[in-house]
Amino acid sequence: MKLPATGLLERRHARLRDALDAQQLEALIVTSAVNIQYLTNHVGSAGLLVATRDAMHLVLDFRYRESMRTTQASRSACPALRVWDVSSTYDEALLECLAGIGVAAVGFEAGHLTVARHTWWRDAAHARRVDVAFRPTERVVEQMRLVKDEFEVGKLREGARRLTDVASAAFAAAKAGLTERVVGGAIEAALRDAGFERPAFETIVASGPNSALPHHRAGDRVLANGDLLVLDFGGVLDGYCCDLTRTVSIGQPSAEARRVHDAVLAAQAAAIAAVRPGIDASEVDAAARSVLEQRGLGPAFGHGTGHGLGLDVHEEPRVGQRRTDSAPAVLVAGMVFTVEPGAYLPGFGGVRIEDDVLVTETGCDVLTAVPSGLQVF
Amino acid sequence: MKLPATGLLERRHARLRDALDAQQLEALIVTSAVNIQYLTNHVGSAGLLVATRDAMHLVLDFRYRESMRTTQASRSACPALRVWDVSSTYDEALLECLAGIGVAAVGFEAGHLTVARHTWWRDAAHARRVDVAFRPTERVVEQMRLVKDEFEVGKLREGARRLTDVASAAFAAAKAGLTERVVGGAIEAALRDAGFERPAFETIVASGPNSALPHHRAGDRVLANGDLLVLDFGGVLDGYCCDLTRTVSIGQPSAEARRVHDAVLAAQAAAIAAVRPGIDASEVDAAARSVLEQRGLGPAFGHGTGHGLGLDVHEEPRVGQRRTDSAPAVLVAGMVFTVEPGAYLPGFGGVRIEDDVLVTETGCDVLTAVPSGLQVF
Repeated sequence: MKLPATGLLERRHARLRDALDAQQLEALIVTSAVNIQYLTNHVGSAGLLVATRDAMHLVLDFRYRESMRTTQASRSACPALRVWDVSSTYDEALLECLAGIGVAAVGFEAGHLTVARHTWWRDAAHARRVDVAFRPTERVVEQMRLVKDEFEVGKLREGARRLTDVASAAFAAAKAGLTERVVGGAIEAALRDAGFERPAFETIVASGPNSALPHHRAGDRVLANGDLLVLDFGGVLDGYCCDLTRTVSIGQPSAEARRVHDAVLAAQAAAIAAVRPGIDASEVDAAARSVLEQRGLGPAFGHGTGHGLGLDVHEEPRVGQRRTDSAPAVLVAGMVFTVEPGAYLPGFGGVRIEDDVLVTETGCDVLTAVPSGLQVF
Repeated sequence: MKLPATGLLERRHARLRDALDAQQLEALIVTSAVNIQYLTNHVGSAGLLVATRDAMHLVLDFRYRESMRTTQASRSACPALRVWDVSSTYDEALLECLAGIGVAAVGFEAGHLTVARHTWWRDAAHARRVDVAFRPTERVVEQMRLVKDEFEVGKLREGARRLTDVASAAFAAAKAGLTERVVGGAIEAALRDAGFERPAFETIVASGPNSALPHHRAGDRVLANGDLLVLDFGGVLDGYCCDLTRTVSIGQPSAEARRVHDAVLAAQAAAIAAVRPGIDASEVDAAARSVLEQRGLGPAFGHGTGHGLGLDVHEEPRVGQRRTDSAPAVLVAGMVFTVEPGAYLPGFGGVRIEDDVLVTETGCDVLTAVPSGLQVF
């Protein structure tokens, strides 16, 4: 797996220092695995990071020591890294680390720490006379991750490009008489052949009435003539997630299927045309939604228009309806997200069309490149 | 996907009522997706459940309404179900639900709720004058899930049985000159062919020096003669996870490779022989560990001996060294877990051998059935 070079991590660390200063924190305890990866190049499901102004104190267990040593000997070494070994539990090791560093006010990720663990930290620090105050923070690293750096843009662009071959394989497999599961298998094999390390999420192959279920996966239903078929898949390339949806027709589509597909395609085009720096993400959603409303499909579009892509397959920005209680989410060049309106008619079927876009100085680049008209197979 | 029948859910609900009574709670807010599935047959990544003595109040968004309607029309309908729709956010809908039910003391899953969300619930309930006290609970549903019912044992047994064909495909693919990734692809295709809905975790194909990294995945390294090759894979069958590891040799193994493999196999046999109801799970770990220590490989065995299997691929019981601060974990008939000691020698390679066992009244059934001697390919 290719990882960003040391110099890029240095820049991320400098941005983190600014964030710590802004919140008057000596350190941040990072518990989110992808946030840890973003800051240290440690890739794994376990790990704990205490990021101070001067050092990245990474708490790791046995399983990851060798791989981290390899990373540290490479051009992707994490600068200012200090590794702390877990002898009993991660949380015990965290307290040893905090006592060793001697910080008094330390932030934690309130969105990535359970109440149970927080309670244990607080009580155990008290019992062990580790004098530290745990302060909740939200989205410190997530805000850094919102705007992609050149390594990230390169990976997202390359991943989106490689989805073209995967889509071709999906289209080739979409035949009446085969099950959704077989088509899903063909997609996942094609993802692997394209060099993705794994699917970014569970592949969706939703045929006929199943296409009206936005989160149907791939089951035993046999594709039949007249079906709408939603194909939603993505891959992870060096940690970065891309995501594509096309809806095709098995055999000749009905007039209603054409009407719904046309409407969703027009809604998606309107949303993509709306993307530019400086607007609120909800305006992108509104552009798609108004097209569907004009065509009587407003109630059939029950989800948001898109989600950010990066180390997580669902991250910020959220591209949905503006909530009264939420802060504005202003688009900035360097953000990457999906644009994926849909319309779902229970019992009949549904359509979703999804591409990945990169916000540029003047608008956006569409990173995915697969025909989106209603293809008939 | 096959789901347990209504009668089984009724029994689970009765056990939950007992647990609520024992903790003097009127209701439990369930935020863990698999715990929600266990209690309601709702399968999805989103959802919230308020379980009272009389009803399962399931909060669902647009995406899942159709599929839940289908389940409710089947023999797997959730008894005493009431569905609450999400109009803005899940957390807003939760407060509406709590206000509607009118409960005063409600438990939440402290191990499955973030500090940020807990803070929002508390503050928003106060602001909206919803008079409810949120009380932390731990492992209420997890303890119910520890002992499998007949539906679960059936699925785990069938999943383990189907891994035999997957192992054959893995062995057939393990050839010098191929990359780890190609072998991984063959395993995942075989998992799908065997009817699993997805891999239970990211397939591990670790060759040569990579086999010394317990959490290596499957990369670009080309298999070479003299390699130890760790193959660790599993599948999900109707929601239930199974997990198998074998270590094979590419070409003739060195004397050292044979020695390490023999030691791990003996350790695993000792651990399996130790399994029976009434002992602490740590005794199973100790049985494996003492064999490896006698053979000078104690320090090379850095992880625990096993983990529970069920709706999660890693669940209770934890089969590891007894921690001074942890409660005993006594084995009971009906528990299912892995037995997977290993030994890892940095730079040289590693061995792990893993089977799935069901605790019976007198000992255990080994559910997986694949030769575990050192095969040479």
